[in-house]
Amino acid sequence: MQTPRIHLVGAGSGDPELLTLKAARLIQLADVIVHDRLVGDGVLSLAQERCAMHDVGKTPGRHRITQDGINELLASLARPDRIVVRLKGGDPLIFGRGGEEAAFLLKRGIDVQIIPGITAASGCAAALGLPLTHRGVATSVRFVTGHCRADLPLDFDWVSLADPQTTLVFYMGLARIGEIARQLVLHGLPPLTAVAAISKGTTTKQELIRSRLLTVGADSRIHALPSPTLFIIGPIVDAIADFRPALPNELAALMHPIAGHA
Amino acid sequence: MQTPRIHLVGAGSGDPELLTLKAARLIQLADVIVHDRLVGDGVLSLAQERCAMHDVGKTPGRHRITQDGINELLASLARPDRIVVRLKGGDPLIFGRGGEEAAFLLKRGIDVQIIPGITAASGCAAALGLPLTHRGVATSVRFVTGHCRADLPLDFDWVSLADPQTTLVFYMGLARIGEIARQLVLHGLPPLTAVAAISKGTTTKQELIRSRLLTVGADSRIHALPSPTLFIIGPIVDAIADFRPALPNELAALMHPIAGHA
Repeated sequence: MQTPRIHLVGAGSGDPELLTLKAARLIQLADVIVHDRLVGDGVLSLAQERCAMHDVGKTPGRHRITQDGINELLASLARPDRIVVRLKGGDPLIFGRGGEEAAFLLKRGIDVQIIPGITAASGCAAALGLPLTHRGVATSVRFVTGHCRADLPLDFDWVSLADPQTTLVFYMGLARIGEIARQLVLHGLPPLTAVAAISKGTTTKQELIRSRLLTVGADSRIHALPSPTLFIIGPIVDAIADFRPALPNELAALMHPIAGHA
Repeated sequence: MQTPRIHLVGAGSGDPELLTLKAARLIQLADVIVHDRLVGDGVLSLAQERCAMHDVGKTPGRHRITQDGINELLASLARPDRIVVRLKGGDPLIFGRGGEEAAFLLKRGIDVQIIPGITAASGCAAALGLPLTHRGVATSVRFVTGHCRADLPLDFDWVSLADPQTTLVFYMGLARIGEIARQLVLHGLPPLTAVAAISKGTTTKQELIRSRLLTVGADSRIHALPSPTLFIIGPIVDAIADFRPALPNELAALMHPIAGHA
């Protein structure tokens, strides 16, 4: 008998066209899909009509299924004769808790196949024409989560983070960006270091704000950017002005010209 | 008249199935493809027979076209009535010099559309079942290039890199990995910090070596891993033993079970 299996699949950064071929095929073949809130309708609409959908998305403030509950649900759904897809926004292994789900399932004797996805940093960078590394500007790029329990202080090695040659990308940082920016400045980054805040990147609702460490906390509040918002921090953000001078709110539109061929 | 355009497309980490839908369609429609050495035949075979192919790959030691030469070639190929795809391994904006090419073309009045790709770190992580971030183990992940001119010292902020809570991923580090590991230890990482070296990740030739900072220089020489080899460094690499106990050389095979459905 075949071993039961869960396909742990990255749905990418938002645009359904950024699904991988493998992910798209698995979604089309799936008997069951267990998905997060951040997986868009455009992705889910690829599934067959008879596919059973389980929304385990964590909407802030609403009753939600716990991670333990998700793990148990996945284990209960896995059967050798069923294609079960666990679909996560972005990449399952970058802030997706995919490692935890995989470990749980493997311990239960359930096989796991992991399909990577375009993580938000890659998707947003491409949508904005903003390189994450660039000769002479950024020799490395670092992905950090700004998410932690609201009653706890942010627990980072700030000295390590405040490296002017590294592009910093904060996932889930909207609630704490003011504090993050303040700490980065306290630990040595110039207060005028450029920041790009991209809300709902690579979707039709994409919004971009350009700011500075000094002002990004206030700017994020004033513009009330919806979640998810990704913050890209570093001198590289100033470099895009060299490519295409544009007013902040025009930039996203300019970077997404109507395709003549597609 | 339409503006001439270049599509700057990420070919992903190796497995053609990891192309995005958008990338696959552009390759299928392309009149001209300008590609790197690391773009595999499986990807290129998606193109039409009449598609003109330009291989600008940089094979070590062979005569090669310079970056300036590639820029000029792209500019000369761009025409409003032509679909020109500049195809790069991985993601164009992560160690792909995509930012440089885009800047050059935009200055010449040529439009650029950027399509992200699965970067090697994502692809390899999924192939190995190795999370890049993981609660309680790695709160961030950092991509670094180990490539620099052979006669120059590696110029990193080693203190910043030697953060035990961050998963480090070195791209193009094969030639200098011994030196990189030594510096990380000198700056505070435990000598027994785990390292995974993945050669030709996500392709049928994928090889994996598990090592430690103390031994990875010697191990890489002994096993003579072919390029490209990606190094994933951090406690998370020990954590995969918890998922699937396996001998190093069996791991890759175990992580790629024959799909029953695909």
